[in-house]
Amino acid sequence: MASASLSAAERFELITRDLQEVLGSESIKAILEKNERPPRLYWGTAPTGKPHVGYLVALTKIADFLRAGVEVKVLLADVHAFLDNLKAPIELVRHRVNYYKHILLSVFRSIGVPTDRLIFVIGSSYQLTEAYNMDNYRLCATVSENDAKRAGAEVVKQVASPILSGLLYPLLQALDEQYLDVDMQFGGVDQRKIFIFAETHLPKLGYAKRAHLMNAMVPGLKGSKMSSSDSGSKIDFLDTPTDVKKKLKDAACIEGVVEENGVLAFAKAVLFPISRLRNESKTLDATPVEAKGLSKPYVSADAPEGTLFSIVRPDKYGGSLHYATYEALEADYADKKLHPLDLKNGVADAINALLEPIQREFNESEEFRKVEELAYPKEKKPEVKKKEKKVNPRHLQKGEAPAQGPAGQEAKAAQQGEKENETFVKAAQEGIQNLSTNESP
Amino acid sequence: MASASLSAAERFELITRDLQEVLGSESIKAILEKNERPPRLYWGTAPTGKPHVGYLVALTKIADFLRAGVEVKVLLADVHAFLDNLKAPIELVRHRVNYYKHILLSVFRSIGVPTDRLIFVIGSSYQLTEAYNMDNYRLCATVSENDAKRAGAEVVKQVASPILSGLLYPLLQALDEQYLDVDMQFGGVDQRKIFIFAETHLPKLGYAKRAHLMNAMVPGLKGSKMSSSDSGSKIDFLDTPTDVKKKLKDAACIEGVVEENGVLAFAKAVLFPISRLRNESKTLDATPVEAKGLSKPYVSADAPEGTLFSIVRPDKYGGSLHYATYEALEADYADKKLHPLDLKNGVADAINALLEPIQREFNESEEFRKVEELAYPKEKKPEVKKKEKKVNPRHLQKGEAPAQGPAGQEAKAAQQGEKENETFVKAAQEGIQNLSTNESP
Repeated sequence: MASASLSAAERFELITRDLQEVLGSESIKAILEKNERPPRLYWGTAPTGKPHVGYLVALTKIADFLRAGVEVKVLLADVHAFLDNLKAPIELVRHRVNYYKHILLSVFRSIGVPTDRLIFVIGSSYQLTEAYNMDNYRLCATVSENDAKRAGAEVVKQVASPILSGLLYPLLQALDEQYLDVDMQFGGVDQRKIFIFAETHLPKLGYAKRAHLMNAMVPGLKGSKMSSSDSGSKIDFLDTPTDVKKKLKDAACIEGVVEENGVLAFAKAVLFPISRLRNESKTLDATPVEAKGLSKPYVSADAPEGTLFSIVRPDKYGGSLHYATYEALEADYADKKLHPLDLKNGVADAINALLEPIQREFNESEEFRKVEELAYPKEKKPEVKKKEKKVNPRHLQKGEAPAQGPAGQEAKAAQQGEKENETFVKAAQEGIQNLSTNESP
Repeated sequence: MASASLSAAERFELITRDLQEVLGSESIKAILEKNERPPRLYWGTAPTGKPHVGYLVALTKIADFLRAGVEVKVLLADVHAFLDNLKAPIELVRHRVNYYKHILLSVFRSIGVPTDRLIFVIGSSYQLTEAYNMDNYRLCATVSENDAKRAGAEVVKQVASPILSGLLYPLLQALDEQYLDVDMQFGGVDQRKIFIFAETHLPKLGYAKRAHLMNAMVPGLKGSKMSSSDSGSKIDFLDTPTDVKKKLKDAACIEGVVEENGVLAFAKAVLFPISRLRNESKTLDATPVEAKGLSKPYVSADAPEGTLFSIVRPDKYGGSLHYATYEALEADYADKKLHPLDLKNGVADAINALLEPIQREFNESEEFRKVEELAYPKEKKPEVKKKEKKVNPRHLQKGEAPAQGPAGQEAKAAQQGEKENETFVKAAQEGIQNLSTNESP
């Protein structure tokens, strides 16, 4: 266990570093100091669309948790995903759940983080059980409409008459903490009101109040004002190096401007922490750099000791730049010592380095490729411009909503609600019976 | 089968007579004309309090359904009852479910109606299943807050920020139609918006639109303005003849005034129809008047042929009155030919005649008495004045909400949510496994 050599205080530091806010530190410390079992944490994501590199923000922090010996449950919220887009066949959701698992595992291997404490849980394996639903009803009998609305204010689309499921999400997310049997939940700081809601209401059902760990929000590559329907700016984990370069080139990145700069933000939230983890790995457990699936560092061979991020620049433009801290990078950028184009190239190279082993796995694994094909079937018909769908907004990078399913198959699947529901419930029941649903990779 | 000798048209007439409104007549007629299986109907009641004679309004109409060969499912909504008063121990709700069954069966025997097509279904036997809850989520994902509010406007307390369960009830009530596998639902006309909601939304899930049968609302004994917390005006099925007389004496019943007259309304909605049923029984299947549990008619031996209701009056006050129709009674009352006191006495006598065999059963059955004792334990402590609780308003006589559970045991039961929930779910699971839950008496 990577965390074996760490003290309780060091583990706490690892768990909470870089976070914007932590609620319930004391309870986490108590578990670490007792040291009888690993602390348990959950992070949820609804497999509505296709995961993109924006997910690296959360995954990078999750890498810290794993490093600190936390048992991390990744909730793949298939029920939510299904509800967010009722016309998408449930089979598609199931394939997407599968694809998410493959990608996430591959990402952790690329970062070089142990996944022996990573557990995937499919939402339908417990969210349709009697006990869970009785608790949901019990919550509904005590929570007012206003409480539910307030809780979801940051993440649920605010319209005059929202659909009821938007009101229910905060309740379900609170119950998940109990039913996943965790000590804490992790999410973006946009989840704050939902987390507070859970802290308030779980004890009323006789359940423990959980700790909450919150990441800062990170603007998308086109800044926070980017339209979520602009898929051009989202970098897919399977994008070619050329695609990545192209998308970075199009990113909003004004010379000398640090605010709402998605490229800098990505370097801060993902690239520096991953490099730091890599260095820590060497100290902690000497994970060999050449381990299967591990990405190459984005630090030049000639970089000085302690460098976390190198930007390779031709000598005629001043030569390569090496940064040991994000702050140094930001200062150079603010001082216009680092040109946007060089920053973009450096970040693109780093992303490509991270994606390289993931794409190698993908290309070498027939199963991985098959899953992707089933989860995101190629469109036959030209896409029809559709009204934007409301999606479960949990755990998305700010401004980067996952892509909606292709229009073609959705239309085809409409009007078969009953049959699908049966299939879904059958699958859910199998999930409940089959303990292998909670599989540890 | 009592309905064997009736034509489809006669059965339809029996099913729909006296109702204020019927939606979906054609679908009912089609089933009757096809005559391959009995039409199936559901009526729901949440066993929150203690059933009182106000329930006779619905039960009298249900007697018509049974007479017409309809399969009647009485939904004993234990989950709703539990949610309406979370502090009442779930055991209490279970005992009340049991008490409701006993009383309802006893009432039908008293009226002389066959109960071979009467089926009791406990809500928790299906309302916590995966399939049901998935459908609930699916509805929540398509129904707006405003739609849900509008649907419940007549029956859910209108406050600025209602609790969420109030928004969910219309959805659950719609799903019940599907999961109880019925052709129609019966209720008071205050359910109209909920019924329309069900007609609109079930087809969106791929389920059939059901027919809806609505009773007129009947004012309470103290008129429609009666406070629901005034338990003095509610006549319990176990009230002594003296209690009944006393409560009738206190009823609002202004001489010559027909409007909002709860005593006249009761005669119209309960006493006349029951007498008519009794006469029809003689024609239809010659149910012997002395059948076990059957009440004595409230028609004097010396009454003319066709009398449905006799008011025994001393000769010095003009002698007994005999009515073959409610209209004749109302006309006499409006003309002040019938004094309120005589009307009250006549109605009290009739109620006592109906209650007599029920109370005899109660007194002779140790089980019945035990169930009542468990469902409504005698209070030890003086009752503390409490804030009025919101109750599930389904199927109550207008102005007559069922009594809340005694304050003492509720307080004792607080703060054991988790344990109770487990017990409840366990019981629910047993209910699902145990087919005898749907027992036909």
